[in-house]
Amino acid sequence: MRFGIMIVSLALLMAGPALADAGSDVVMHGSKNGAPACSSCHGETGAGQPAAGIPRLAGLDARYIVRQLESFAGSTRANSVMHPIASALIANERDAVARYFSAQTPAKADDGTPDLKRVAAGAALAARGDWAKGVPACKSCHAPDALGAGGTVPRLAAQSSEYIEAQLRAWQDGTRHDDPLGLMTAIASKLDSDQVVAAAAYFSSLPVSGAKAGAPADDPVAAEAAMPASQGFAPPPESAIPNDDFGKMVKLGENIFQDPQHFAGPFVGNTLSCSNCHIARGRLAGSAPLWAAYVAYPAYRAKNKHVNTFEERIQGCFKFSMNGKAPPLGSETLVALETYSYFLAKGAPTGAALPGRGYATLKKPAKPFDYARGQKVYENNCALCHGANGEGRNAADGRTVFPALWGPHSFNWGAGMGDIKNAAAFIKANMPFSRGSTLSDQEAWDVAAFVDSHERPQDPRFTGTVEATRAKYHDGATWMYGKTVNGVVLGAHSLLPGKR
Amino acid sequence: MRFGIMIVSLALLMAGPALADAGSDVVMHGSKNGAPACSSCHGETGAGQPAAGIPRLAGLDARYIVRQLESFAGSTRANSVMHPIASALIANERDAVARYFSAQTPAKADDGTPDLKRVAAGAALAARGDWAKGVPACKSCHAPDALGAGGTVPRLAAQSSEYIEAQLRAWQDGTRHDDPLGLMTAIASKLDSDQVVAAAAYFSSLPVSGAKAGAPADDPVAAEAAMPASQGFAPPPESAIPNDDFGKMVKLGENIFQDPQHFAGPFVGNTLSCSNCHIARGRLAGSAPLWAAYVAYPAYRAKNKHVNTFEERIQGCFKFSMNGKAPPLGSETLVALETYSYFLAKGAPTGAALPGRGYATLKKPAKPFDYARGQKVYENNCALCHGANGEGRNAADGRTVFPALWGPHSFNWGAGMGDIKNAAAFIKANMPFSRGSTLSDQEAWDVAAFVDSHERPQDPRFTGTVEATRAKYHDGATWMYGKTVNGVVLGAHSLLPGKR
Repeated sequence: MRFGIMIVSLALLMAGPALADAGSDVVMHGSKNGAPACSSCHGETGAGQPAAGIPRLAGLDARYIVRQLESFAGSTRANSVMHPIASALIANERDAVARYFSAQTPAKADDGTPDLKRVAAGAALAARGDWAKGVPACKSCHAPDALGAGGTVPRLAAQSSEYIEAQLRAWQDGTRHDDPLGLMTAIASKLDSDQVVAAAAYFSSLPVSGAKAGAPADDPVAAEAAMPASQGFAPPPESAIPNDDFGKMVKLGENIFQDPQHFAGPFVGNTLSCSNCHIARGRLAGSAPLWAAYVAYPAYRAKNKHVNTFEERIQGCFKFSMNGKAPPLGSETLVALETYSYFLAKGAPTGAALPGRGYATLKKPAKPFDYARGQKVYENNCALCHGANGEGRNAADGRTVFPALWGPHSFNWGAGMGDIKNAAAFIKANMPFSRGSTLSDQEAWDVAAFVDSHERPQDPRFTGTVEATRAKYHDGATWMYGKTVNGVVLGAHSLLPGKR
Repeated sequence: MRFGIMIVSLALLMAGPALADAGSDVVMHGSKNGAPACSSCHGETGAGQPAAGIPRLAGLDARYIVRQLESFAGSTRANSVMHPIASALIANERDAVARYFSAQTPAKADDGTPDLKRVAAGAALAARGDWAKGVPACKSCHAPDALGAGGTVPRLAAQSSEYIEAQLRAWQDGTRHDDPLGLMTAIASKLDSDQVVAAAAYFSSLPVSGAKAGAPADDPVAAEAAMPASQGFAPPPESAIPNDDFGKMVKLGENIFQDPQHFAGPFVGNTLSCSNCHIARGRLAGSAPLWAAYVAYPAYRAKNKHVNTFEERIQGCFKFSMNGKAPPLGSETLVALETYSYFLAKGAPTGAALPGRGYATLKKPAKPFDYARGQKVYENNCALCHGANGEGRNAADGRTVFPALWGPHSFNWGAGMGDIKNAAAFIKANMPFSRGSTLSDQEAWDVAAFVDSHERPQDPRFTGTVEATRAKYHDGATWMYGKTVNGVVLGAHSLLPGKR
């Protein structure tokens, strides 16, 4: 599939104006094999017809449109109108049509007056998910302003609510099942009817081009579903954040947690967000939840051989996982993150080792972890979002949607996730995102080993030589730092840190 | 009584060598009126005879010895042997004898082999008290190494266990009742027989001259009684401090808390200790316990108008209550105090407003608080320990036992205790020490007003004028700062800070 996407991209890049003209022809007049003019339903500029359930195509990624035509022509999107049309288009025509609509400026279709209560509920679902049912935030894949991410995750902003609702129901009833890794089928199956309607209303209400950049927690707040009772501790809902100076600090902490590039830029040296490792904004048991960490500090850490306060612990995240530098103790950045964590821990017993803390340790695999097996797991399960080269993926507006797993924009060699055993535990519990625990233990170990066998920014504690640094900080069987993989001594040519 | 003590002191100071010779005469040969030679029982150097229950007198404060002779001669120490002897001594002879024994070098009497288990239990009682029964640490009055403090609180170090035990029982059965403010009667009445024996064994085992200066928490640790269940939350016992690097930090925090001059000297500008305001080493409900404070931060504080972390809150204690300077964030001093507080809060729910937090607010008094009434309350209840001029009192080795309440060595005008309502609440709950809640609300308000109507070091936030500083920080009816008392504008001539 990954290669398929690459070939389409290449074709589109080489096609040029001729293809656009060909696209215009088919859109306006239909195809030689008898497909009717696309414009008769989708409109000349791809605006669609909300009331008839016909989607807006303008501004969608061309690769995504091509894939849909393939689905209609095949058996993975059941649609009696589109099946004969898509079947009548030859590959070149599909590409041309896709290119044409993609180049149109998306406009907001008249979708009636939105129900504000529904929109608010949809906003909460989009921003925070419903982790009580294992539903992630829609935006964690569809991007912060629902602008989409690449050829597989479509833009939803300002799409008509009728169309979105119909698609969610199509995933639910199986009439559409062309979703990569079955992600949307799994997610839609967990949504109730109110959530379907709410999500559709919300996305339909969004501006076509991300007007609210960088403010995830300023979204309208609906009552948030509690976390699963099975996790033992339930952090307070979003609605419990008080409307005062303390609450402002909590929200700032949450904003930093979601979008550190924007809210804590000077201390961040890569494209990751705290939420990448601490799922559900630090709320989810088994994904290093903040509430469990908060009550476990101050604590002695073998990593630096002294008692660390919670603030110092967070400094470590910035230095290593964020490949940045430590915000000063007492800085607004650290105080906000501490205050947010404290808020999430409300009611949790101080000093307790709460169930769900950290990542559940994964037993040693039956077979030693293996790069080649891991690579296959990666290609089949991870490359879709994280890219063939672990580079992650950005939204149309340049903001990161899927984090880089190695290379110059990922965590550095000092991060805990560079230890295969941590990465394996995290992956097993949480990946593919929203479909945690579907990989076998062996697959999790193998793919973790594959990811952690790639070069990344140097450990900031580098002592002068890779050998000495490995001996001091990475002298364990689950660290690849300093080992030779594919002829490269990991750490020896560590990439310079740099934000994209 | 206070004036009585002062007259005795003055008489001793003026007496000189002649008195010492006279003392030697009586000690060796008896008095003119027929009192036998003191040395026949107490020994020529005042070493005493442990087995016979005869105390060591060497090195006791002369004023204390005089007071005991007065008690024996009167009716407040029932003792058939000492009553006729003390009665036979005239005032000058009592002074002379007291002077003689006080000048002797105290030596450790042979008190047999101590029972180490008893000694350990006594050490815990001496260092920490038994707050489940309202018994304070013996050392909080008898000084860290039981060297005594002035003419009213005797040295106990190396006194014979037989004698100490007998005295505790005498307080219990009322045959001795010459104790100022009834403090020892009240305390002894709360001790069980095992505690009496343990305390006696411990003090008897101590070296005569404080060998263990400045290390309160290094005392042998016995199982500590739990705090009263009525207080709602019980911090873990001392014995729960783990024997590892984390535990070391907890103990360092406890040591700083008890003896900040020694363990956090650079940040302390007066003679107070954290335990002066946070009774029972921060454990006691209603006395601003650390466990309740720990779970209440980060929090917005009106005092500085932003969200404070727990560390920043402690910095405030150093700046104001300790009249020192803030230890840097992340410094060992702050981390240790935070770690100690975290340890005490083990199991307490994060973010809860726990019963017993802070000081219980005291209702406004029936009559407005009054300096003159407060002065009388002070003279009758406080001057005994805190001195006629609020100067506090030191042990023989110079270490502070009773804190200064005003003047250059007390808290500065920025401290919360300078607010009469806080001081009143604290005094009501805790003073006279170990006899909290015996003053009326009105008395507590009056004496708090008296204490807070004296000059003390300047508020470090001083803005340039007393008027402006009052307007900005002390503009309340319960702050005397900036008001004129006895012709002095408080704050206008604020005393320079300085350690003794």
